[in-house]
Amino acid sequence: MTLKIYGAPRSRAFRVLWAAEELGIPYEHIPTDFQDGSKKPEFLAINPNGRIPAIDDGGFHLFESLAITMYLAKKHGGAKLYPATPEAEACLWQWSLWGANEIELPLVQWIGNRYVLPPDKRSETIAAEAEAKLPRPLAVLDAHLANRQYMVGDAFTIADLNVASLLYTAWFNKADLSRWPNVKAWLDRILARPGALKARKLREV
Amino acid sequence: MTLKIYGAPRSRAFRVLWAAEELGIPYEHIPTDFQDGSKKPEFLAINPNGRIPAIDDGGFHLFESLAITMYLAKKHGGAKLYPATPEAEACLWQWSLWGANEIELPLVQWIGNRYVLPPDKRSETIAAEAEAKLPRPLAVLDAHLANRQYMVGDAFTIADLNVASLLYTAWFNKADLSRWPNVKAWLDRILARPGALKARKLREV
Repeated sequence: MTLKIYGAPRSRAFRVLWAAEELGIPYEHIPTDFQDGSKKPEFLAINPNGRIPAIDDGGFHLFESLAITMYLAKKHGGAKLYPATPEAEACLWQWSLWGANEIELPLVQWIGNRYVLPPDKRSETIAAEAEAKLPRPLAVLDAHLANRQYMVGDAFTIADLNVASLLYTAWFNKADLSRWPNVKAWLDRILARPGALKARKLREV
Repeated sequence: MTLKIYGAPRSRAFRVLWAAEELGIPYEHIPTDFQDGSKKPEFLAINPNGRIPAIDDGGFHLFESLAITMYLAKKHGGAKLYPATPEAEACLWQWSLWGANEIELPLVQWIGNRYVLPPDKRSETIAAEAEAKLPRPLAVLDAHLANRQYMVGDAFTIADLNVASLLYTAWFNKADLSRWPNVKAWLDRILARPGALKARKLREV
């Protein structure tokens, strides 16, 4: 049975679509939306938590986007995108969690209120407060990437994908990332990967 | 070299200490605090992100508490506390992330402002607003535990530990959990495990 990926491409489903493209896994995309779609009984049967994204992999149901990208790489990726040692695997977990805990909310608030929302719905106060939270964690990432091409080990992994999928909206909207040149160079590189381009095409419409 | 665990026992280091106790891993505990301790150069050398907890496992440094508990089980636990199949492992990730994303912040705000903070620092408004966010996700967990003793598979795993360590403060402060009887019964059971009692002793002082 073909993998089913539920979730609008502008949601966290983006990273799941990107992972499937990188791994070359055939999939059916059901662009369930944030609002009504994720509360319908047929979706709650897949994800009782009522949030997108979720997957149905031959009857196995999973939610939480970070768990899904790691599962897809581990289950279907062979040695691709997922490291082999416990230490490197732990670093992949660490950076994926770091992204969710340290940068996700301020990024969404910053970019949403500066670029994405309709002009009359934007709050410059929220944008500025959110932007002010980012220099500390992004300096941590910038230092980490100073002598590295990728976040974990010497190859592109799900850690890069999970964190870059958060920074994508800042990068796409041409927010000023020049303060973190290593982060910017890393985004320029990995967001141009063929798998990233295919996933981006689903949302850049 | 003995595993070093950094972080005050009332922080997210609690779950790391609990995992080490469950796994029977010898460790040295450095109770680095939230404020000054986590910003000192000697701690930033372990965790450049400047947050507790962190570990030094024979020179391998790791931060993010959920990553640490999973790493300890996988690296040092043999077949204990960590499932063997990719599907069960993915469910462990999913529930650990679910806890962080769905219940952690409202739980901290609810219990802090209702029971933990000094009375003159509490806000009943914040406590009530936070408490109102919990019935939806806790109903999801309660339904999941209706016919299960544990969150993933038929044994205690790091998933139970990661989520129960969030609900611990509600349980310890005798907040009303009777609305979610399966959650309450599961907490009563696993927070009385010998490993949990040893970790609780470090914070219940």
